[in-house]
Amino acid sequence: MLRYDQEQGAMLVLDWQHYPYDTAYITCSDLDALVSATAPMAAPGKTPLTFAASYGLVLTARQYREWPTDAQRAALIQTAERLRELYPAAPCIYLVIDEALRAADTALVQGQPAELALATFLETRMRQNDAVAEACGRHAASLLSENTCILTHGFGGAAFNWMLHVAHAEQGKYVHVYVTETRPQLQGTRLTAQQVREAGAEVTLLTDNMPGLYFRRGMFDAYITAATHIAGDGSIANQAGTYQYAVLATHHSVPFYVLGYDGPEPSLTTAADLPTAQRISDEVLSFAGTRIAAEGVSAYALSCDVTPPELITSIITERGSFKPRQMADYHTLQRQNGHV
Amino acid sequence: MLRYDQEQGAMLVLDWQHYPYDTAYITCSDLDALVSATAPMAAPGKTPLTFAASYGLVLTARQYREWPTDAQRAALIQTAERLRELYPAAPCIYLVIDEALRAADTALVQGQPAELALATFLETRMRQNDAVAEACGRHAASLLSENTCILTHGFGGAAFNWMLHVAHAEQGKYVHVYVTETRPQLQGTRLTAQQVREAGAEVTLLTDNMPGLYFRRGMFDAYITAATHIAGDGSIANQAGTYQYAVLATHHSVPFYVLGYDGPEPSLTTAADLPTAQRISDEVLSFAGTRIAAEGVSAYALSCDVTPPELITSIITERGSFKPRQMADYHTLQRQNGHV
Repeated sequence: MLRYDQEQGAMLVLDWQHYPYDTAYITCSDLDALVSATAPMAAPGKTPLTFAASYGLVLTARQYREWPTDAQRAALIQTAERLRELYPAAPCIYLVIDEALRAADTALVQGQPAELALATFLETRMRQNDAVAEACGRHAASLLSENTCILTHGFGGAAFNWMLHVAHAEQGKYVHVYVTETRPQLQGTRLTAQQVREAGAEVTLLTDNMPGLYFRRGMFDAYITAATHIAGDGSIANQAGTYQYAVLATHHSVPFYVLGYDGPEPSLTTAADLPTAQRISDEVLSFAGTRIAAEGVSAYALSCDVTPPELITSIITERGSFKPRQMADYHTLQRQNGHV
Repeated sequence: MLRYDQEQGAMLVLDWQHYPYDTAYITCSDLDALVSATAPMAAPGKTPLTFAASYGLVLTARQYREWPTDAQRAALIQTAERLRELYPAAPCIYLVIDEALRAADTALVQGQPAELALATFLETRMRQNDAVAEACGRHAASLLSENTCILTHGFGGAAFNWMLHVAHAEQGKYVHVYVTETRPQLQGTRLTAQQVREAGAEVTLLTDNMPGLYFRRGMFDAYITAATHIAGDGSIANQAGTYQYAVLATHHSVPFYVLGYDGPEPSLTTAADLPTAQRISDEVLSFAGTRIAAEGVSAYALSCDVTPPELITSIITERGSFKPRQMADYHTLQRQNGHV
């Protein structure tokens, strides 16, 4: 999805809007290009958007590499400010940016190029991030039975990938994933369905109004999604619709597992601290340039909703499976005591 | 939506596939044209599809009007057979067809043209049908408060129209209708949103994954849909998704009212007798000719689902408001005892 080409000094970013039907990359040589290419990439965990945005610092460092050290540092700080303003709802970007700035500083003080230091730092963090996703996915795979039908909604990111890979390819389990379209941006159709197929599991795409009927027929063994944010009270924010399927799962006694990567964000104490949802409406009124609703009709879709802890069976992180109420102490719990 | 032009001897059928963005009519001079124009018209109550299909008899009567009486009768019976085979899930079509055949027979015996008798019969039945829809809609309007937010799903037909008209224009109530898209055929986007707008009420289109979030925020005073079929045990069949929003309504203590027109179909005793849902998948994988899912991904959407009586607050018919369990005796109940 994302690669820095040091020779060109450019980021290659997947053109998400047409994936997977067309797999094309956008070459971004400056911050503006990068910002516009990453705009639709919101995804759970510290994943593509976090790193894509952070690579803005690498592009800045390259652009000003011939300037005096102080001017380079000022340009990097300015880029960091701009990135924070651009992604107000993505605090994990700030953390990565702050650390990246420190890595650049250390390099500049030692007379080393900031571009290389930043690129190395971000590659290392991406690898660490994948290790988190793998550990989370492995714990989730262990919860699946030999023959499992899963409902998912939205895009579960790398941990969902790892869960499917481990369950299907390593453990030989039969896994059938029912993927909602996830209107209006169709993350399910475009990203998740393709992801499940690549992992080798069975995949069936459902319209967002079908899960209820399938719950009633007893077709799902588990409902599994990621979370774009986890708060300390065990509430989660995720693509809009996550909540309604959690109500249906509870009503039909199906467990709801949340892929929680590295756990709750320390700055989010309760559901009230979760970022406000963004409004997305144009995609509801039109499709591929064709207007489908009558003129004068307004539409409403939100980027995410909040699911309260009482509807969540477990939150699976890199450290194992936790009850939502354990999120409050997650970062102070000892690893050996963390498991439920 | 539907008009017989006796001069031309042709049916004019709304081109539903592009409505409301384009309002065009398909001229159908023979049964084949009529069948292909009406294929996507399934709607609740004895509404457009029932009458559009039945007009196939009028077209046949016109085509063979110079033939001997017996040959005309044979041609009409053959058309009736074909219509029954074409619409196996629409028993109300059979009832109308059977009555129409009798009206044609009576005319032929008296030496009158079958075409005129059939057209007159169907126009009368459409008027009766609208009277049923009006009575049903009036009873429903009386249940709405002065300031009401309604969730609806699918297409509620003429009774939903009447309910909105009476509540908004006659009673001066403020009515805001939240309409689900109703994927994959988008009846909500194409038909219901336009219908609400024409009735003068407020309308907001929601993706099918949004109602849960709005239920949680307490934004709906009532959930109201029609039913494509009602069984004697108070179960209903309606566009897929009706069930999941009924579960959400119950979970959030919001009443679910079903517009039941002229009540249950006598041939349907329990949920098991409700017609099997049709599978619709192509619309999930592609949109307006553009493939949106990866190759190799299969999709599943059904035309309808079943909601059990325990999730339904009341079924509103031309005779008033009934508890679902009263459907068993609906046709034997006296009018004066029918109300709850």
